[in-house]
Amino acid sequence: MEKKIITISREFGSGGRTVGHMVAEALGIPFYDKDLVDHIALESGFSPKFIEEHGEHAPGKSLFSYAFAHQGIPGAISGLSTADFLWNIQCSVILQLAEKGPCVIVGRNADYILKDRKDCFHAFIHADNDFRAERIVKMYGETEKSPESRLQEKDKRRKVNYQHYTGRDWGRSQNYDISLSTSTLGIEKCAQIIVDLVNESK
Amino acid sequence: MEKKIITISREFGSGGRTVGHMVAEALGIPFYDKDLVDHIALESGFSPKFIEEHGEHAPGKSLFSYAFAHQGIPGAISGLSTADFLWNIQCSVILQLAEKGPCVIVGRNADYILKDRKDCFHAFIHADNDFRAERIVKMYGETEKSPESRLQEKDKRRKVNYQHYTGRDWGRSQNYDISLSTSTLGIEKCAQIIVDLVNESK
Repeated sequence: MEKKIITISREFGSGGRTVGHMVAEALGIPFYDKDLVDHIALESGFSPKFIEEHGEHAPGKSLFSYAFAHQGIPGAISGLSTADFLWNIQCSVILQLAEKGPCVIVGRNADYILKDRKDCFHAFIHADNDFRAERIVKMYGETEKSPESRLQEKDKRRKVNYQHYTGRDWGRSQNYDISLSTSTLGIEKCAQIIVDLVNESK
Repeated sequence: MEKKIITISREFGSGGRTVGHMVAEALGIPFYDKDLVDHIALESGFSPKFIEEHGEHAPGKSLFSYAFAHQGIPGAISGLSTADFLWNIQCSVILQLAEKGPCVIVGRNADYILKDRKDCFHAFIHADNDFRAERIVKMYGETEKSPESRLQEKDKRRKVNYQHYTGRDWGRSQNYDISLSTSTLGIEKCAQIIVDLVNESK
């Protein structure tokens, strides 16, 4: 069956976002990453920065703690936690984008949200810790924390968020059609493999 | 770096063994599956049938329970459980085979046993439950148990065995260079992807 929607889930620092971008360019279809955040921001009333920071993180914090900052937005009176509220918006935005036509969606548990569509191709991009540590320093600069603890922290948050909302294990091969290591295969090659497989499905 | 040893880990019924066989044929290198069992049998004193049934299963049973059937074999006086004894032999056989030269090794936690060799390419082959259920009935026939419960049972055993001996989660993408779904991509295509990547590493 023709695969029209490509979801790219990825480990922090693996280059998964770049893979997604290359795939979208090669196939000439929209790439939703930052755009996706903007869509969710528009629907939710939260700022893009807030969504970026909380959208793939562990659930738990109550909207009450943000009540003063976000008075008047729908979620503030729904009784949902911030994370649950964002999750609902995220599901709705991703389902709508997939309806619009072929695209590449990076992150945001889109593999799970779109699991019932047969025209989706789900990829997971990962890399070994040395590759990722070097890459995050190169891409995002040094911080007070060591690259290793930044990776650990981000991995843990994505894992907890994914498990909470999907009931599945994050990074489990069986959730995806393909999982690729950029540290073994290289970023370009991973993108090429996905592009070839999507083209062959036509 | 050139990848000389290919390990294929697989879900029961996914066609991973067939993928491994095709890869070995295409690359013109030895394929260790049944041969591996025979090697382990020779080293351990157990019958190939016994190894096939217990080698990738949950640990726990004491050698004592097999003492009468296997008097005189080294393990019987070592105080190791059957599974631990087999694990030691399995590690030793797999490390020796990898030393001998290029090959494809299916199953037996070879991805973990050879994790420190840089010339290995580790693949995980999986498929959705419908694909696997249909395939095990076609390959191995009907039994009293439903195909679904046969899959569940086998998955659980491999998972427990893998976790016990490696401390890692079975099927976690990050353990492998590539994970492929045969139900999405087809058995031949999965083999072709691996062959191409190994050839390109030369």
